[in-house]
Amino acid sequence: MNYRMLLQYDGTRYDGWQRQGNTEKTIQGKLEQVLSRMTGEAVEVIGSGRTDAGVHARGQTANFHLKEARPSKELLSGLNAWLPADIRVLLLAEAGERFHSRFTAVSKWYRYQIWLGDKADVFRRSYFYSLPAPLDTGRMEQAARYLEGTRDFKSFCANKRMKKSTVRRIDSIGLLQNGEELYIDYRGNGFLQQMVRILTGTLIEVGQGKRRPEEMEAVLGAGDRQAAGFTAPPQGLFLMEVNYEGEL
Amino acid sequence: MNYRMLLQYDGTRYDGWQRQGNTEKTIQGKLEQVLSRMTGEAVEVIGSGRTDAGVHARGQTANFHLKEARPSKELLSGLNAWLPADIRVLLLAEAGERFHSRFTAVSKWYRYQIWLGDKADVFRRSYFYSLPAPLDTGRMEQAARYLEGTRDFKSFCANKRMKKSTVRRIDSIGLLQNGEELYIDYRGNGFLQQMVRILTGTLIEVGQGKRRPEEMEAVLGAGDRQAAGFTAPPQGLFLMEVNYEGEL
Repeated sequence: MNYRMLLQYDGTRYDGWQRQGNTEKTIQGKLEQVLSRMTGEAVEVIGSGRTDAGVHARGQTANFHLKEARPSKELLSGLNAWLPADIRVLLLAEAGERFHSRFTAVSKWYRYQIWLGDKADVFRRSYFYSLPAPLDTGRMEQAARYLEGTRDFKSFCANKRMKKSTVRRIDSIGLLQNGEELYIDYRGNGFLQQMVRILTGTLIEVGQGKRRPEEMEAVLGAGDRQAAGFTAPPQGLFLMEVNYEGEL
Repeated sequence: MNYRMLLQYDGTRYDGWQRQGNTEKTIQGKLEQVLSRMTGEAVEVIGSGRTDAGVHARGQTANFHLKEARPSKELLSGLNAWLPADIRVLLLAEAGERFHSRFTAVSKWYRYQIWLGDKADVFRRSYFYSLPAPLDTGRMEQAARYLEGTRDFKSFCANKRMKKSTVRRIDSIGLLQNGEELYIDYRGNGFLQQMVRILTGTLIEVGQGKRRPEEMEAVLGAGDRQAAGFTAPPQGLFLMEVNYEGEL
């Protein structure tokens, strides 16, 4: 039986999503450990995509297969009983055998959170990138327009040995200011390694006047990581939502 | 020279404000350790009051004396360089020799934060008390009116061997709802041990229909901790502000 989960996690304490040697310190490893103990089966949890160390999720989707079917309700409550408080399963349901969190995802929404207050805020330290200098969000909006659409985002990919296509479609980049909090929302069909953080670093450099919005064309055209801006730190990034075919 | 500080801290990792055997795990201990290393003097830091383990502060005030005067700016940047990221000094200034964070405080503002969402929220777990059952805030408002004024709050004091007066003045108790977040703001001239958390637990019981608002008179009159409600958990509580004579 194939099961699908909607997950929320605070990435602060973890070395990211993907299982590594020490399973205790990754989200995937933690989920697999708890599910394997609960069911007695060697469970593999498939996420919609990796998140880096320190990156959070409000709506990560993952799936896993069990040889012996169990009630979803029991799996859900067991997981939340055994998982640490910084990982929560919000929904768990049986899924069709063909459902695959990564391959069948059609789009994703990421949010990057920036704190513009002039003083570092203790309660935002793990969830915002603190940037006390002013940003010209009008310029950032202009730059964002160049980055939307189906483009080759090689310049915005941290993986230098990426052999597969680096073409992705960004449906929209939206800036939303709420007092001294600035959110940048990215929606698209898929994102390369650290792509959202590099896009954000580049937009910040535009907002600081270090780059012109029109420069984005040349940055995309270069196909070279060196052409883009810095990699914004992980703690400001949230995977908000993963969408699948046939959903509203 | 007497110095005054405005502090912010995330109490999650700490055993509260007050220094104990292991100085590493209290806010006061941490501040004293850093100041003593910076100055070479044995520094005692005086807070406006203790906060319990897990309780936070957005505006704690503290003061300390140094034999050898140093520039405030240097002390401020040194403290923030050496303190962990979950304790920040927002302001530091020279104060008159008579300034004492506890004795000269005239009023305080505490906020208790409740999360009413039907699902536990990973990102609010350390800053809210999660209470998915509905609360009748109208009833809570009514009960709050009985608790304002100068009263003997012995029933709301966790210290059974309290020998000093348990009379305090509560200026106002205000409920503020923001989506699924409920804040209860307490302003008064001083608060007994765990008083805000016991007041909150009692108001929650009123909101859940387990007590009537008019019952508050009898609870106050009893002078007995058993007459009041449960102690709401620490992570929802924030010391917001401490006020001193002559301030706006």
